[in-house]
Amino acid sequence: MLKGSQTWIFDSRPEILSTGVTGGPFEAAGNLAGDFDILHDDLWMGEETYEKAHSLLIEKAVDTALKKGGVTGKDIQFFLAGDLINQITPTSFAARKAEIPYFGLFGACSTSMEGLALSAFILNYGGAEYILTGASSHNAAVEKQFRYPTEYGGQKPPTAQWTATGAGVALLQKNSGLGTLPYITSATIGKVIDMGLTDPFNMGGAMAPAAVDTISAHFSDTGRDPSYYDLIVTGDLAKVGNSAAYELLSNKGLKIEKGQFRDCGMMLFKEDQPVQAGASGAGCSAIVLYGHLLNELKKGTYRRILAVATGALLSPLTFQQGETIPCIAHAVSIEMDGRQ
Amino acid sequence: MLKGSQTWIFDSRPEILSTGVTGGPFEAAGNLAGDFDILHDDLWMGEETYEKAHSLLIEKAVDTALKKGGVTGKDIQFFLAGDLINQITPTSFAARKAEIPYFGLFGACSTSMEGLALSAFILNYGGAEYILTGASSHNAAVEKQFRYPTEYGGQKPPTAQWTATGAGVALLQKNSGLGTLPYITSATIGKVIDMGLTDPFNMGGAMAPAAVDTISAHFSDTGRDPSYYDLIVTGDLAKVGNSAAYELLSNKGLKIEKGQFRDCGMMLFKEDQPVQAGASGAGCSAIVLYGHLLNELKKGTYRRILAVATGALLSPLTFQQGETIPCIAHAVSIEMDGRQ
Repeated sequence: MLKGSQTWIFDSRPEILSTGVTGGPFEAAGNLAGDFDILHDDLWMGEETYEKAHSLLIEKAVDTALKKGGVTGKDIQFFLAGDLINQITPTSFAARKAEIPYFGLFGACSTSMEGLALSAFILNYGGAEYILTGASSHNAAVEKQFRYPTEYGGQKPPTAQWTATGAGVALLQKNSGLGTLPYITSATIGKVIDMGLTDPFNMGGAMAPAAVDTISAHFSDTGRDPSYYDLIVTGDLAKVGNSAAYELLSNKGLKIEKGQFRDCGMMLFKEDQPVQAGASGAGCSAIVLYGHLLNELKKGTYRRILAVATGALLSPLTFQQGETIPCIAHAVSIEMDGRQ
Repeated sequence: MLKGSQTWIFDSRPEILSTGVTGGPFEAAGNLAGDFDILHDDLWMGEETYEKAHSLLIEKAVDTALKKGGVTGKDIQFFLAGDLINQITPTSFAARKAEIPYFGLFGACSTSMEGLALSAFILNYGGAEYILTGASSHNAAVEKQFRYPTEYGGQKPPTAQWTATGAGVALLQKNSGLGTLPYITSATIGKVIDMGLTDPFNMGGAMAPAAVDTISAHFSDTGRDPSYYDLIVTGDLAKVGNSAAYELLSNKGLKIEKGQFRDCGMMLFKEDQPVQAGASGAGCSAIVLYGHLLNELKKGTYRRILAVATGALLSPLTFQQGETIPCIAHAVSIEMDGRQ
């Protein structure tokens, strides 16, 4: 049901039956290693190219979610997913292996919540029994495409972010009525916001206004206030974008406690890992949400999370052509009644 | 409502209120010039880059659809669209101007029907009052990315296709009950199909099995047979793929008349235009469907159309890495009760 101008309320509360979360060596050395299903100890993962390794991350995340959910690919109606690579080939190649009817999505690092919002809508109205949705990135594949091959050793400013290696996939189903699984209650779809910033090494700063626009719209559309959520977590604003977004939200009169407003890009890696402002990449919010945060929800650390995945919709070409960086954010509410 | 394994039936029959169709000089010299709203007489369209011209095609198609529909951007809840350019920047940049909550899609040349299927689903269940959806391509922007800059004058084999320049956008609404507009009755979402073909200059041949898989699934899921439709039209299989698909469908026992099975890629340009096997590009099916075919539907030439947009999910990188070409097709049924 549409509520306000850009929010859906999911009365039937579609559930997250299971998830699959895969990562690379840098994630294995990070803060959240215990929340991954599979961690690879090198970036090649036994493949010939980084892009094939990227596909493998998705395939393994899909396999894991299916296995944990106790269903097979044939039970799943749709797969909604995307990544950052040109023509999202790692995801499409993984979809070829999965043999599930497929919607390719591109929302840069907002793809995770674009997919979760659409999947929840489809399930809420009986458009499927089961849906798989997710997003992913691979540090070396993404860095060589957007910036330099990592082997080149290019230096980066402190505002830059480290592209996460990993895939996060969720297997969704209609509400089972058992009350033991996390469920989706609403989603707010973002507009493209462009404040005229042009620095591709400060995407967090560029994306912060998009996150703020979507978060404000979410509260305005739902009539809720921030106290409804134990946690409002952005996708990958990292240090620079997180503090900018917090200030902008405060200026808008939204009272959010500092500890209640976190960022996936600041949670994934340890303080002493050389990731500049934090993590990024389409996989970042998918990994942290479908791994760590759902685990915390199941433990009872949180009861209601607003997950706001943020995306910078630029390309190397638009940067070279002197364009500014259009950004977007989509927010999805995930709740759970008790501990699992 | 899900019917069978991969088909949605839209009981409330969302309508196409209006469309906007823009094109370039080659389209102006083609078969369907009279079905465009705006035709540009050169590929630059007054812009500094082909990519900006690409965005302009989308912006003008959106403006036209809104104007013809008698609504403003503020009335529209969502914009679902995509294109072929890396990170679909022409569409995202157009979405920035439109200021409408935005879902970026990537399904290569299947994007038009991926967007129409999702939009119809959302409208069918009250997830929006109005939705804009569409797809686009720009010959020079796409050719330079996937093959060579057109200025280079690279030669192509007869199986190659000519990337269309243009954008097709549809403005959808809930069924008005007036019975004077085309409406959407079902959609079948395709799987990724890869028969091991590797020649990027024969995408029609590569995509034909995906079209056949989705068309077969559509009839199997709905219990309809091909005689239900006056026209089954594929996106851009062009000459090679069209005859391959027709043969594959016949082999599956689906009785389709030759005149009832057409292809947008064989309709757009004149026989004497140097387009080898025909037209292609994400804009091709969007232009032909939202322009010419809806006009024919309104004239009464057709009453029921199954539009099957086909996409080749490769990239220049996957080709260089020796990968085969995964393909997909999504089918949407568009019907109209009488002449407008």
